[in-house]
Amino acid sequence: MLHDPNRVYVFDTTLRDGEQVPGCQLTTPEKIEIAKELETLGVDIIEAGFPISSPGDFQSVVELSKAVSEPIICALTRANKGDIDSAVAALKFAKRPRIHTGIGSSDMHIKHKFNSTREDILARAVEAVKYAKQFVEDIEFYAEDAGRADERFLAQMVEAVIAAGATVVNIPDTNGYCLPDQYGRKIKFLKENVKNIDNAIISVHCHNDLGLATANSIAGLQNGARQIEGTINGIGERAGNTSIEEVVMILKTHQTLGLHTNINTKNFYELSRMVSSQMRMPVQPNKAIVGSNAFAHSSGIHQDGFLKNRENYEIIRPEDVGFPDASIVLTARSGRHALKFHLERLGFTLNKEELGEAYLRFLTVADSKLDINDDDLLLLMGKQQLA
Amino acid sequence: MLHDPNRVYVFDTTLRDGEQVPGCQLTTPEKIEIAKELETLGVDIIEAGFPISSPGDFQSVVELSKAVSEPIICALTRANKGDIDSAVAALKFAKRPRIHTGIGSSDMHIKHKFNSTREDILARAVEAVKYAKQFVEDIEFYAEDAGRADERFLAQMVEAVIAAGATVVNIPDTNGYCLPDQYGRKIKFLKENVKNIDNAIISVHCHNDLGLATANSIAGLQNGARQIEGTINGIGERAGNTSIEEVVMILKTHQTLGLHTNINTKNFYELSRMVSSQMRMPVQPNKAIVGSNAFAHSSGIHQDGFLKNRENYEIIRPEDVGFPDASIVLTARSGRHALKFHLERLGFTLNKEELGEAYLRFLTVADSKLDINDDDLLLLMGKQQLA
Repeated sequence: MLHDPNRVYVFDTTLRDGEQVPGCQLTTPEKIEIAKELETLGVDIIEAGFPISSPGDFQSVVELSKAVSEPIICALTRANKGDIDSAVAALKFAKRPRIHTGIGSSDMHIKHKFNSTREDILARAVEAVKYAKQFVEDIEFYAEDAGRADERFLAQMVEAVIAAGATVVNIPDTNGYCLPDQYGRKIKFLKENVKNIDNAIISVHCHNDLGLATANSIAGLQNGARQIEGTINGIGERAGNTSIEEVVMILKTHQTLGLHTNINTKNFYELSRMVSSQMRMPVQPNKAIVGSNAFAHSSGIHQDGFLKNRENYEIIRPEDVGFPDASIVLTARSGRHALKFHLERLGFTLNKEELGEAYLRFLTVADSKLDINDDDLLLLMGKQQLA
Repeated sequence: MLHDPNRVYVFDTTLRDGEQVPGCQLTTPEKIEIAKELETLGVDIIEAGFPISSPGDFQSVVELSKAVSEPIICALTRANKGDIDSAVAALKFAKRPRIHTGIGSSDMHIKHKFNSTREDILARAVEAVKYAKQFVEDIEFYAEDAGRADERFLAQMVEAVIAAGATVVNIPDTNGYCLPDQYGRKIKFLKENVKNIDNAIISVHCHNDLGLATANSIAGLQNGARQIEGTINGIGERAGNTSIEEVVMILKTHQTLGLHTNINTKNFYELSRMVSSQMRMPVQPNKAIVGSNAFAHSSGIHQDGFLKNRENYEIIRPEDVGFPDASIVLTARSGRHALKFHLERLGFTLNKEELGEAYLRFLTVADSKLDINDDDLLLLMGKQQLA
């Protein structure tokens, strides 16, 4: 089924799982703007919405289907005809439509959410896939709360929905519960125990409640999954979804994994800023890959090493994710090398003794200020140089 | 050496590796305030600063040593006598002092940062530990950039520094480079190949450049490490350090790991807010454990399941980390159950038909607003109820 066994498909749900977060709601024109940037980024699938959930969401799926050409446009449903009918209608203009349907797979969800039995849930899952397949060829099935599901029942469900026509099987860790080795084993179990597994792509959809979404996604890919679902900046319900930018940069940095995506990584930074701004969702400065400090070196030890050879403290080149520049920031923790670097940038050439004196003055100023800017440096040097 | 083989020691470096971030610098009184809260939280070790780096930092280590009784107070040095002398002086008042000394262990650092050889670096490491040991019994050694170091040389270095008196050996993934399985194997290799490894505690110190700091720390603990280094909110150089709150809550949630800490988890939320506010470092809403949305359910599917049984979508009880409350937020993605929940909270009792009508009115309002508050709901119901 897969032409290139090492190709990882990127499924973006910023506009669905991300957009349902309190305060993040977008207008349809805003969604279109982001969708076009996602197309430029090179994502393979855009989950455009959950059409049955509200008239606005239905309309967004319609408009995104018209606005975007290259990526597959996907619509979410629960496992019932009403939801699927709504999704089919909303996807009318999609060049490459996908329906994403599914149901709970853990005993917790089966008993306490659906008040049902494994047998009944399995039948509903198969029925939903078969129903959707009448209208759309590309059907992704999600086994909700798979992270806590019994692995034998999960395997049974996955086998049944593939037989019913699912082209992609999504194994969500809905509650962000799994440890990476557990989640990896779960994917491996499906790969080894589901007879028809090679007729579908396994997808990983992780949540970050314990800070493990990225690691779990990678563990899934290491064990045979070939689609990763996530959002820009890791936004999403509760602690959010997997950060697409983190998973993609891990695959790029760790070439020994032998996996690759279609993503133009240089577009990450700009898109991160657009999503943050439109969705009113701040990105913390220490966010991996796209945070404002992600490439900033501040301690003396690090700045010294960085100035000798940037690879001492840099495993990703900032320009590879479109980051403006790796910056050396001066604080009271900075060393002589960093001070020299900035003073030379400002045109001062100092011998060792002069640098030592300037550094002592610098420390006095720096201990009383948060960070030191060029004006402070000019003032620091002023009496000798600007007289 | 360890009394309880399942006890994990928590080493907080918020005030050292965290505080060196641009814009995060604190005054000594602010550091004391945070240190006292860290003591209440139950951390085992507080890294108080890098005394040689600036007079202010030296003084902070002095004052924190006086202010805190229970945790070990640790001071950072490079592997030279000047740094160690400064740390010894700064730790004069510490009830339980520790010196944290070390040097690069990867060939990248040895060649491009120190312009040296493995033999020379090994000798300097041993010499530094022996020198520090004359003044302080508790010596932690860091093998900088261990994440990229040759494992045989790393094992040789670790064995030598333990023989020289190191009580803790810190294996930092300085650049946040490792994948969890790689980092776990590195710790396992040390556990299996360093003859005297049981005479010291292995410590994990991870960075989050690829979003894997938490997962790597857990992988280290699963393979024999028993100290974890990190910061509150995961602040720190570049993409930051391991988030202590994430690792601790993973150990608490996954009891099958059989590991425990001394942390009073109910204090996490308040301390997170204090650190964020004093250090001017925002915590993104979707930050795991302590983000403002970490326990907020917004989509209809999730809210419905949550209202039936909160364990459907909640693996940590918010009150266990001192979080004010799990909240159901109303947006255009919310379902009938969530609307009913809030209307009942406001005193409205509706039959199925009335709820259906109210829900249609709700969707119209919700599609045009970011979120729906109680005033909106009262307005929605107003004509019938408030007349």
